[in-house]
Amino acid sequence: MENKKPLILVVNDDGITAPGINFLISVIKNFGEVVVVAPDKAMSGMGHAITINSTLRLNEYKNNWGVKAYSCSGTPVDCVKFGTKVVGKGRVFDLVVSGVNHGTNSSINVIYSGTMSAAVEGSIEGIPSVGFSLDDHGLDADFSGCEDVIKKVISSVLSNQMEKGYSLNVNIPKVSKEKIKGIRVCRQAKAYWNEDFEKRKDPFGETYYWLTGEFVYEDKGEDTDIWALRNNYVSVVPTQFDLTNYGALEVLKNWNGF
Amino acid sequence: MENKKPLILVVNDDGITAPGINFLISVIKNFGEVVVVAPDKAMSGMGHAITINSTLRLNEYKNNWGVKAYSCSGTPVDCVKFGTKVVGKGRVFDLVVSGVNHGTNSSINVIYSGTMSAAVEGSIEGIPSVGFSLDDHGLDADFSGCEDVIKKVISSVLSNQMEKGYSLNVNIPKVSKEKIKGIRVCRQAKAYWNEDFEKRKDPFGETYYWLTGEFVYEDKGEDTDIWALRNNYVSVVPTQFDLTNYGALEVLKNWNGF
Repeated sequence: MENKKPLILVVNDDGITAPGINFLISVIKNFGEVVVVAPDKAMSGMGHAITINSTLRLNEYKNNWGVKAYSCSGTPVDCVKFGTKVVGKGRVFDLVVSGVNHGTNSSINVIYSGTMSAAVEGSIEGIPSVGFSLDDHGLDADFSGCEDVIKKVISSVLSNQMEKGYSLNVNIPKVSKEKIKGIRVCRQAKAYWNEDFEKRKDPFGETYYWLTGEFVYEDKGEDTDIWALRNNYVSVVPTQFDLTNYGALEVLKNWNGF
Repeated sequence: MENKKPLILVVNDDGITAPGINFLISVIKNFGEVVVVAPDKAMSGMGHAITINSTLRLNEYKNNWGVKAYSCSGTPVDCVKFGTKVVGKGRVFDLVVSGVNHGTNSSINVIYSGTMSAAVEGSIEGIPSVGFSLDDHGLDADFSGCEDVIKKVISSVLSNQMEKGYSLNVNIPKVSKEKIKGIRVCRQAKAYWNEDFEKRKDPFGETYYWLTGEFVYEDKGEDTDIWALRNNYVSVVPTQFDLTNYGALEVLKNWNGF
């Protein structure tokens, strides 16, 4: 049997023109045949949203990457579905890679993240999937520290037999590659956002709001993704889509009235 | 100490005019002080999306329920944040109740669901939270079978001490209340959508798509939410927001390269 080149779907949530996906493609295209489907605009904070009550567009995206690429009017999760069901119809993908996100998706941010929801969607479809995020929100972020990390993680995913049921949430600290201490397998840190809404008046005297907030992190564990990032490690969290809290099943069965 | 009336936030994803939330409010307002914040339009399939790059509106919603109600231009999760951080600012909510959704959120649908994402958001904020869904997509669905279920579940949540870390995903079969056999505490059934995209031409000759799909369910377990619904039980799944796959942590630590 010949060595078949892996078929790899690349997606993101910052949109197809974002520097992060550009960097990811430049690294990942050496690993196999790459197909890109990414939103035609920034889609941060879209979580696991899908487009069910309106129409979708998919357009070929001319590029210098030498790969097949499409922009999509939908969400990051829509992009995964378009990639596997339309662009790659009838073919089996070996990998879904999402990112590189501009900003971390550590801790509770994983649940709001379009980048990670796309990776989770890949795993729901049974495809080994990874989301990469850099701890730098800037559009001018320096992704050079990500190169070795991407190579190492993707090599590992392709050479080890990744189980079904989860994807990998990979967060990379904002330091030069020399300062990265290594990879840590972690749990999702317990934390939440204490939101506020800034109230303003529009030019017509009507009230509108902007969502703002403060990240509240009281988890003292040294086995978390946030601890890893703050100590210059790359964090890798296996992220599942079975949301059942198994520990609570017996508790609830013993409730009065249940 | 006086018996304080519970403070209850009601949200949904089908929009503030939907029959399902109307029915929920009619039942829930006997349990305490109710505040409603719901989307100003249908927001199905929004998952855990939040609005971070644009403005939001919140408008008082005149109603015959005798409760404080607001429509919001944002997502279901935005509605929860508005409820606890703006409308109920400085007060402590005892309960977040989401629904009643028109259509089930059993199995993998939980992850795409705005109804359940709103309940999950309540639990992230540390508030006991429940999402209700009826196995009937119709706008003319008959919610009368839900009344006793809602009363029983809400009484249980208020009288038992619900742990933090999860919300309840409650799905109700589409049968008359006499035919409902009882409540089953379940795990999320393993299943997925095998999507397709229907390709059409717009009036200008350009291609657009509609997301369609077939639900693939091969889970033989009798401890799942889908089994419960198909056998006329109400399913209750404890649904968590810690997405870490703990079982995979040791597996990954032993990977070559990690």
